[in-house]
Amino acid sequence: MNFQPRSQNYIEIVQAAFERQGFMKHLGTELVDVRPGFCELHIPFKEELDQHHGYFHGGVIGSLADVSGGFAGYTLVEEGQAMLTVEYKLNIISPGAGDYLKGVGRVVKSGRTLTVTHIDVYGVKDGIETQCATAIQTLMAVSA
Amino acid sequence: MNFQPRSQNYIEIVQAAFERQGFMKHLGTELVDVRPGFCELHIPFKEELDQHHGYFHGGVIGSLADVSGGFAGYTLVEEGQAMLTVEYKLNIISPGAGDYLKGVGRVVKSGRTLTVTHIDVYGVKDGIETQCATAIQTLMAVSA
Amino acid sequence: MNFQPRSQNYIEIVQAAFERQGFMKHLGTELVDVRPGFCELHIPFKEELDQHHGYFHGGVIGSLADVSGGFAGYTLVEEGQAMLTVEYKLNIISPGAGDYLKGVGRVVKSGRTLTVTHIDVYGVKDGIETQCATAIQTLMAVSA
Amino acid sequence: MNFQPRSQNYIEIVQAAFERQGFMKHLGTELVDVRPGFCELHIPFKEELDQHHGYFHGGVIGSLADVSGGFAGYTLVEEGQAMLTVEYKLNIISPGAGDYLKGVGRVVKSGRTLTVTHIDVYGVKDGIETQCATAIQTLMAVSA
Repeated sequence: MNFQPRSQNYIEIVQAAFERQGFMKHLGTELVDVRPGFCELHIPFKEELDQHHGYFHGGVIGSLADVSGGFAGYTLVEEGQAMLTVEYKLNIISPGAGDYLKGVGRVVKSGRTLTVTHIDVYGVKDGIETQCATAIQTLMAVSA
Repeated sequence: MNFQPRSQNYIEIVQAAFERQGFMKHLGTELVDVRPGFCELHIPFKEELDQHHGYFHGGVIGSLADVSGGFAGYTLVEEGQAMLTVEYKLNIISPGAGDYLKGVGRVVKSGRTLTVTHIDVYGVKDGIETQCATAIQTLMAVSA
Repeated sequence: MNFQPRSQNYIEIVQAAFERQGFMKHLGTELVDVRPGFCELHIPFKEELDQHHGYFHGGVIGSLADVSGGFAGYTLVEEGQAMLTVEYKLNIISPGAGDYLKGVGRVVKSGRTLTVTHIDVYGVKDGIETQCATAIQTLMAVSA
Repeated sequence: MNFQPRSQNYIEIVQAAFERQGFMKHLGTELVDVRPGFCELHIPFKEELDQHHGYFHGGVIGSLADVSGGFAGYTLVEEGQAMLTVEYKLNIISPGAGDYLKGVGRVVKSGRTLTVTHIDVYGVKDGIETQCATAIQTLMAVSA
């Protein structure tokens, strides 16, 4: 789908919000691609992010999904608005394995108050992607 | 509901699995209470866990929810089984604010293959609890 | 939780909305109890509502869940507002069996724009209740 | 994605199961397309299916979503297996309006025990499709 950003500065707005998130830095998240209604984030593997089998912890997969969708929605807000996660639902479909996790958020519906996104998360090993999660998320735009 | 653990060592099994999760240590998670079909976890606030408004990041809330439910279910597995998150759905109902987050997972249905849990997450400030999230989760027991 | 209705006529408002729903009549739904933030509905079994094993069809369970939560939320709207389902997530935990289905919706969070509900659905056979589903739902109040 | 059916008779198996569902007949559901990992169903509008604004009732949208995903998954089971809905999560993104509802279920992950599907529901008016819902569903194959 094609979406029109409501602010010309949507890339700077997303980057600035991303920089302010201590937890995203803590996970080592990289903002890779931002387009209207779209966001791609990566998280390189490190030992602190694993569960007890050496894969990415489900909490990292969930956090990445939530934020990938959140910033996809955030590209379409009016200047001065913030974007809150109302809820999301995530299916883990394979272990999160690889050199890095790739989260891709896409806006499905951009309403005045609510935004709905689809999110896919992949483990990437030697350039080969394996989908590890899929999610649907509801966001709400609020005056900041 | 009252559940019978399938292993007498369910507390040790949960503790051992908890210790092996690098990501839970990384978040500073504390295992506070473990009973059959029940688990309570806390995460004290620190700056690395915030989003851009100074509250707990949604990813921390989601991770805590996922793991609180997962270990609630893990108390009821047979010895030698692991518990995988199939999916969960989380509503954020207020900002995650306070000195620590408290996650409470409760088993609703304990089947042979699948387990369903309810999870509530609270921000606790000066001893006052404010619910910040509620979730339903599906888990699957697998041979480890 | 205790909730204050925003309209004194909340029972009449719920009843009037319920009467206008052709599909609820079609399913034979009965409005059994309405209190602030709470709604209970029943659907007696009939052959048209089954799936291929003689139980209540999952679609009937889902419809009942959606509407039980929706009307629980609807008890708390301002006069003149309508209540839309934003989304819900439903786990089927046992087959929907019995003389009738009982749906119970409870408001967890009543916000200005969004409302979150918990819903439980039971099959009732000779007065014995067996839970068959549990759900979380997000509703939005809109000017009608 | 391309999926291989585990039974050569997958179309007959789906059709036979569809015929046995009293509730689907009651809704007037039509089985329009069945392929490996894919199912499309239609429900023509009739007054009994409406909510109080003259659109398709949310319960009809949810039922259609559940069954479209369920039969998409059912195309990939082994002969003699049944497919149960474990859970689904549905976002309503616009009112269900039109001459008929179109439900499209697609398998995302086909595991030995669990199957995950994506579902989209559209209202179709004079040949124009408007998406009214999107869902993710978890199914479980069981010995019938």
